Amino acid sequence: MIQSVAFIGLGAMGYRMAAHLPKQFDTVYVWNRNFAKAEQHASDFGTQAVSLEQATQADVIFSCLPTSQDVDNLIASVQLKAGSIWVDCTSGVPESAQKLAQIVKSQGVDFLDAPVSGQTIGAENGTLTVMVGGDIKAFERALPAMQCFGKLIKHVGASGAGFAVKAVNNMLMAVNLCAVAEGFTTLKAHGVNLNEALDCINASSGKSMVTETVLPQRILNRQFPLTFALPLLAKDTGIAVDLVRQAKLSAPVLSLTQNLIQAASDLSEENSDFSTAVTMYEKWSKITIE
Amino acid sequence: MIQSVAFIGLGAMGYRMAAHLPKQFDTVYVWNRNFAKAEQHASDFGTQAVSLEQATQADVIFSCLPTSQDVDNLIASVQLKAGSIWVDCTSGVPESAQKLAQIVKSQGVDFLDAPVSGQTIGAENGTLTVMVGGDIKAFERALPAMQCFGKLIKHVGASGAGFAVKAVNNMLMAVNLCAVAEGFTTLKAHGVNLNEALDCINASSGKSMVTETVLPQRILNRQFPLTFALPLLAKDTGIAVDLVRQAKLSAPVLSLTQNLIQAASDLSEENSDFSTAVTMYEKWSKITIE
Amino acid sequence: MIQSVAFIGLGAMGYRMAAHLPKQFDTVYVWNRNFAKAEQHASDFGTQAVSLEQATQADVIFSCLPTSQDVDNLIASVQLKAGSIWVDCTSGVPESAQKLAQIVKSQGVDFLDAPVSGQTIGAENGTLTVMVGGDIKAFERALPAMQCFGKLIKHVGASGAGFAVKAVNNMLMAVNLCAVAEGFTTLKAHGVNLNEALDCINASSGKSMVTETVLPQRILNRQFPLTFALPLLAKDTGIAVDLVRQAKLSAPVLSLTQNLIQAASDLSEENSDFSTAVTMYEKWSKITIE
Amino acid sequence: MIQSVAFIGLGAMGYRMAAHLPKQFDTVYVWNRNFAKAEQHASDFGTQAVSLEQATQADVIFSCLPTSQDVDNLIASVQLKAGSIWVDCTSGVPESAQKLAQIVKSQGVDFLDAPVSGQTIGAENGTLTVMVGGDIKAFERALPAMQCFGKLIKHVGASGAGFAVKAVNNMLMAVNLCAVAEGFTTLKAHGVNLNEALDCINASSGKSMVTETVLPQRILNRQFPLTFALPLLAKDTGIAVDLVRQAKLSAPVLSLTQNLIQAASDLSEENSDFSTAVTMYEKWSKITIE
Repeated sequence: MIQSVAFIGLGAMGYRMAAHLPKQFDTVYVWNRNFAKAEQHASDFGTQAVSLEQATQADVIFSCLPTSQDVDNLIASVQLKAGSIWVDCTSGVPESAQKLAQIVKSQGVDFLDAPVSGQTIGAENGTLTVMVGGDIKAFERALPAMQCFGKLIKHVGASGAGFAVKAVNNMLMAVNLCAVAEGFTTLKAHGVNLNEALDCINASSGKSMVTETVLPQRILNRQFPLTFALPLLAKDTGIAVDLVRQAKLSAPVLSLTQNLIQAASDLSEENSDFSTAVTMYEKWSKITIE
Repeated sequence: MIQSVAFIGLGAMGYRMAAHLPKQFDTVYVWNRNFAKAEQHASDFGTQAVSLEQATQADVIFSCLPTSQDVDNLIASVQLKAGSIWVDCTSGVPESAQKLAQIVKSQGVDFLDAPVSGQTIGAENGTLTVMVGGDIKAFERALPAMQCFGKLIKHVGASGAGFAVKAVNNMLMAVNLCAVAEGFTTLKAHGVNLNEALDCINASSGKSMVTETVLPQRILNRQFPLTFALPLLAKDTGIAVDLVRQAKLSAPVLSLTQNLIQAASDLSEENSDFSTAVTMYEKWSKITIE
Repeated sequence: MIQSVAFIGLGAMGYRMAAHLPKQFDTVYVWNRNFAKAEQHASDFGTQAVSLEQATQADVIFSCLPTSQDVDNLIASVQLKAGSIWVDCTSGVPESAQKLAQIVKSQGVDFLDAPVSGQTIGAENGTLTVMVGGDIKAFERALPAMQCFGKLIKHVGASGAGFAVKAVNNMLMAVNLCAVAEGFTTLKAHGVNLNEALDCINASSGKSMVTETVLPQRILNRQFPLTFALPLLAKDTGIAVDLVRQAKLSAPVLSLTQNLIQAASDLSEENSDFSTAVTMYEKWSKITIE
Repeated sequence: MIQSVAFIGLGAMGYRMAAHLPKQFDTVYVWNRNFAKAEQHASDFGTQAVSLEQATQADVIFSCLPTSQDVDNLIASVQLKAGSIWVDCTSGVPESAQKLAQIVKSQGVDFLDAPVSGQTIGAENGTLTVMVGGDIKAFERALPAMQCFGKLIKHVGASGAGFAVKAVNNMLMAVNLCAVAEGFTTLKAHGVNLNEALDCINASSGKSMVTETVLPQRILNRQFPLTFALPLLAKDTGIAVDLVRQAKLSAPVLSLTQNLIQAASDLSEENSDFSTAVTMYEKWSKITIE
């Protein structure tokens, strides 16, 4: 029975995710490196802004940080409570999840890698998808806490499996981003009306999340709103190809995509949305996708 | 005002598409190389099985053949009627559409390239998507006839634009097919539960028509039902990269995909569904996507 | 027995190639669109600057123009002499050679596609490599004329075969150019001494013409002297991938290279040497290969 | 002053390399897991087959093992002598060299990564190329010993640099192997005479070690003699792309090549020479390169 929960890392996602916890739990600790954010959260949502030491004494501890390295450092710096569960919602590295799971197990603690998808709007509405790797019993015990912010919550395998699914998901999105940039510059070069073409494709077999939302809402309207930074997508595609390499598989399309996203990220200005990857193609072709 | 329509090419798609025409038009001619099929169609749906010469005297003539080459040969063999419109629903070559449009124009005839998507089920239900290239006035005149079998019908540009959109659509599907094969063999190599992973991806940014329907309904269940042959997909991806070449653009992901689909097609047995392309990856990795 | 020869197209290569002809033949016509160049050639080397009509009455007519399209236009504009041989040293399109061979055959003329390699220095020294496609008897008859400027002269197949070999040769060079750019930015990122590394590679299995001459003489010294323009290399790699497409083969590395060279060419300033393709990689990585 | 040398790992390369040491040094220890080989070596070349413990007391210790992991295990199992130098000729992992160099430094020992190229014939003749990473003073001290079997011996950078250069060298060779397979199946599909084409290319800009030796001596003659196994080439290309990943660079051609070589290796029978990678392309195209 979960008596207390904690949420560590109140970024754009975490701030909104943690907001749902008080509806279900009486004791909700929050902590953030920039502590003012934690205090603001407490004031906004009735959570308790506490020290890291106290936060990590909760029964279920959520973390949502930029990289697995940040989670490593955090866990190395604290004393955990036997019987608790650490649920890491970072988009992290599968290998790292396996190591952390082993490290905290010696302290009687379970570690679940539980990355989320659904963007800030999903976090706000508590309708995120959560893909979870780790011990199935720990998953079942932590489920009521994850249900506060998640709608589809799946146990996808052992430690690292959650991170692996997230990396592959983002890779598939990246593949579509590149392919759509290539396909739509080609169509425009041939004088095709892009908006009408998009309507057709979205009713046909070529459709994807990229054609349905990214292309019309970020690219064709030339808005490129920053909600997910291009270097983070480059990081995620890198995690995916590292999985390919570790399994000694051949994945030419994924590898090529990773290289292209890496190049686009290297060429991009700071704080560019992932959708700006298409501008690399636009510079090549001198064609604007609009 | 359209008084008569004809449908030439009663394959799996054409047979079903032509069946809707008598609901709207009194005079509906059908013709097929294997003429028994035309007679069967007449008996099934109240159309008239006529000679090719008579069929091509209709006000609107639909064709739906395997390749642009077949349409070229057909048009070269007949006398057209000034004022009529030829609507070619083949998944054809844009350059060929431009040439045919010019050729028939000298006979006072309009040519529209109007490929469809939506598979046999869409043809059956009259809910196909039709992407049309050619003269806008001819498009408007032919629209009532196309509405018999089409739901979303878009004029996407000048002659060839319809074929171009179809080729790019199928290319985007092919890209997803390869990427999904690569991503899911990787996940399986890492012990991930593929069905749970798929549920997560279909609720996330990596989803596409391939993850939503092709993967669960053709691949994971190991059915690979033949509805669209792999060599035809190879042909379509070839049309797409030819468009890239003609415009002197750079489209690395599309080009790589075309090469991989070509290899998969060359390795495949006759009458293999396009979804069997994934078995090339399965042979590489000795991992079955199930 | 060859009584007269002509050379049409006195560019950087042609001017030097034609200079060797008077050593072997008494009657050597030259023609160039900018006719002053032909007159200069006559004055420099004892050739005869004549009208195009007269030049094309020679027993053997060499052409060396930018593209196959230029040769098409030229041949369409003149009257040929039955029994003569047209030897086209352009880096041209195989399909075009086949068409031209057929066209001139009806006038009793043989057409050989005979592109050369060896750069201006090889043209100057008369040590070019000539790869020849077309009728073997015509090849044998034209051989003495080709020997004026060629050292290694090979009949590689029927019409178009010479152009095909040249396109594949240049493609292999382009592949090495990209691979070397990728490999050497990587080595430099890891702090390796590039000059020492190059010495090792040039004594090992990774060596190529690019590592032996292009890298040290054009790139590492940051000279990039213009002797072969990047857009022409892009054109040649395009010819090679068109050969792949026509044969319905799968050539992923060649296709990717063509796309990368196309992008590099599109990004480059006018009159850039082919070796500047590496600067695209340098912009991605912010690493200079020096 | 080097008084004693040792050679550990008497495989096809090591056996021949160690044979040169007695010409220069009085005390030459050899050791091999299968110890009979060490005894044979002693009998053949006047070396001393000794225990691993004794071998690792030499002033300079050479190792030449299948993978860096084997070297890790070996070094972990022995006591080293302060002041000695470990020269690892394995085709190993740069990161591993950096770790080992740090580990043995604490015991007063220098570690040099010193992979070789030149095949068994070069080992036999003592004309190998040696690319060395590590402390420059240790390099200078070990140089006389390396000169026994090496002709071109270069210090290319800090620890790991030697392995990095070897990996990139082998990667460049792999790129040419794939490109040549693609280019020559294409030429054959177009009816070109491959032997004549090869002569032309080897006199032109497309030439490489693969066109000069691998293609004529292993592939065109259908011999594929096993001197360097395909899985080892797959391993080396993997090391190269890991270097790309670590430096966060974009190297699309290298990545694609690694994936193709991995696929070819996965499809190959055991004990296949690296040159059999071309048979993957031959199966795709149903064209034999001969």
